[in-house]
Amino acid sequence: MSLIVQKYGGTSVGSIERIKAVAARIKTYRDRGDRVVVVVSAMSGQTDRLIDMARQIQARPNPREMDVLLSTGEQVTIALLSMALEALGCPAKSYTGSQVHIRTDNVHSKARIRAIDGARVEADLEAGRTIVVAGFQGVDDEGNITTLGRGGSDTSAVAMAAALGADECQIYTDVDGIYTTDPRIEPRARKLDRITFDEMLEMASLGSKVLQIRAVEFAGKYKVPLRVLSSFEAGEGTLISLEEKAVEGAVISGIAFSRDEAKLTVLGVPDQPGVAHKILGPISEANIEVDMIIQNVADDEATTDFTFTVHRNDYEPALEILNAMARPLAARQVAGDDRIVKISLVGVGMRSHAGIASRMFAALAKEGINIRMISTSEIKISVVVDERYLELGVRTLHQAFDLH
Amino acid sequence: MSLIVQKYGGTSVGSIERIKAVAARIKTYRDRGDRVVVVVSAMSGQTDRLIDMARQIQARPNPREMDVLLSTGEQVTIALLSMALEALGCPAKSYTGSQVHIRTDNVHSKARIRAIDGARVEADLEAGRTIVVAGFQGVDDEGNITTLGRGGSDTSAVAMAAALGADECQIYTDVDGIYTTDPRIEPRARKLDRITFDEMLEMASLGSKVLQIRAVEFAGKYKVPLRVLSSFEAGEGTLISLEEKAVEGAVISGIAFSRDEAKLTVLGVPDQPGVAHKILGPISEANIEVDMIIQNVADDEATTDFTFTVHRNDYEPALEILNAMARPLAARQVAGDDRIVKISLVGVGMRSHAGIASRMFAALAKEGINIRMISTSEIKISVVVDERYLELGVRTLHQAFDLH
Repeated sequence: MSLIVQKYGGTSVGSIERIKAVAARIKTYRDRGDRVVVVVSAMSGQTDRLIDMARQIQARPNPREMDVLLSTGEQVTIALLSMALEALGCPAKSYTGSQVHIRTDNVHSKARIRAIDGARVEADLEAGRTIVVAGFQGVDDEGNITTLGRGGSDTSAVAMAAALGADECQIYTDVDGIYTTDPRIEPRARKLDRITFDEMLEMASLGSKVLQIRAVEFAGKYKVPLRVLSSFEAGEGTLISLEEKAVEGAVISGIAFSRDEAKLTVLGVPDQPGVAHKILGPISEANIEVDMIIQNVADDEATTDFTFTVHRNDYEPALEILNAMARPLAARQVAGDDRIVKISLVGVGMRSHAGIASRMFAALAKEGINIRMISTSEIKISVVVDERYLELGVRTLHQAFDLH
Repeated sequence: MSLIVQKYGGTSVGSIERIKAVAARIKTYRDRGDRVVVVVSAMSGQTDRLIDMARQIQARPNPREMDVLLSTGEQVTIALLSMALEALGCPAKSYTGSQVHIRTDNVHSKARIRAIDGARVEADLEAGRTIVVAGFQGVDDEGNITTLGRGGSDTSAVAMAAALGADECQIYTDVDGIYTTDPRIEPRARKLDRITFDEMLEMASLGSKVLQIRAVEFAGKYKVPLRVLSSFEAGEGTLISLEEKAVEGAVISGIAFSRDEAKLTVLGVPDQPGVAHKILGPISEANIEVDMIIQNVADDEATTDFTFTVHRNDYEPALEILNAMARPLAARQVAGDDRIVKISLVGVGMRSHAGIASRMFAALAKEGINIRMISTSEIKISVVVDERYLELGVRTLHQAFDLH
């Protein structure tokens, strides 16, 4: 008998029929003795419908009122799912974010969870009820409704699981697990049975959009085992946990990639202390997020080349900022390229295995793929290449590291 | 500078355009220096849409969850109206029933308001904000969302006005005020400038469906001046207050009527103590509401005839109950008629004027309208007549009491 938190996204509860199907699935867990807390999103389409109404009134709707508006989406779902459970003879009780005391800061539309008081829910679980909680929403210290931003329901689920000490947090989606890479690019991509939090963070941030990053961070921090599985098919999905795979397991877990990259370089800038801050300060002030950063100094010169990557949408504004800075910085030139992509090898195994990087570079070189930038972390090696090499690069590495 | 509570029903906020129009109207009050608290219903059609979804899941949806579901309707409106006010440069803040602490009992779907804590709203008003409150909903002592039942938004508005000591509570509807009688029956019906709470209660309960009865009772109890006016047209509407009209005013304020009446008679029942209770007890146990009750004893007989009226929908079940009782009661016969209507003269003025009743009966007699039952109160005289006389009766009395 376990305590399980299950999260169903908007597609999984997108119609009355699907809500009934979710109720039936929950009942199978109840029937085998598990206690279940369910976290749900708004029915798919609802949030967009509400946003559209708001936009007809205000171009930039008041953020506090936007949260009041959007939070009705999940509130509809919790009521309907509770009814569907009751209709199956399964006692249920719904809670809005405010009712279940999901306390957040007061940053409307992207609030962060501070604490959850699980006491009420625990009493209900004791009484044999299934608990249905509105994801994506919380309440600040003043009693204002807040929302966690798109995808925030994953975070709500993990936070509930942490607060209740749940045995597992199950995230139901429209995919059946985490894959070694995107099957649309490499049809031989394989579903992973397990993956570590750290690996999942690298996979998620690099383009596998199955799970919200914050939810994975949260789960890692509070050691909540997380499982990604399909709402529509049977199967064990992928378990994300602290435990690493057995030693004989693969060194590399998967290959992530991101298409939306752009690269900017300030060439021949005098190599003085503080130059990196002078370049990145204005970029950051413009709310442009920087991903990879590389600085090279040629030994025999007093100048340096400074390169970084940004989201492709931020390429033009970033270029403008750099061009305006070129003269005050005494830089020789500003260059850029928004036709690049990033491909990353991810795996906790690489920590203890030398030679992964050289094997990666060799495999790419053999296919004539030129590497434009390299960046590494403990469990990841990323390369930036021309965008025309994305598919070839992913498939080449998938093959080279025996991920089929 | 006044403190005004305004209530807008579902039709008045039925579209984005109408919400904008309501915001513009509120702004005119703000611009002249009034402080405004607005109570709104769900956009028209929304409540029915939600009920329909629930019915697809459960034939009799769980009442607690039904309230969670339905309360989203007003929550959408408060957010959108607050945005519309902000878009006009009018600082606004929304409150759900729970946030504004509209405390109710725990009778889901027809909760009654126990208390409202106006403190938070007062602070916001001080800060120059217009307050937008979700009508129809509240919260019980356990934090569960409750709803007040159809039309409950009127009650929410009056309760807010009472809690805040508002100068006036304005109910915006699709009619421009209270009329001397239904203009669809008597085109010469005249809008009343003022009416007392007592008169309004008699008018409302007898068929003028402009205001919810509970709201009028509440307003009378807490002495909140209530004004009914149109969302769509300019005008002062009708003020409902404690003050009676000036002495020279009309004795009669209006003529109410009800089509949905049925009459039942137990004939020749032995005239013993407790007979009324024996007849009405089982009726009441079947949740059938009784309106008029008349008992006549012929001096020379030991039996009595006992007559009462019920809603036409309750006629058949009431008749069955009486038929089953006829023998144990030793009654001679049970008779009934569901083709009757009730017409009532209403006016506080009649308290001090003799002869109103005889003038009424004379006018009806002159037109050949046979009176089947008569019932009187301090400010009302009602007669039951055959339903074919409804229109003629109303017009005759409207003329006879100079209401044009």
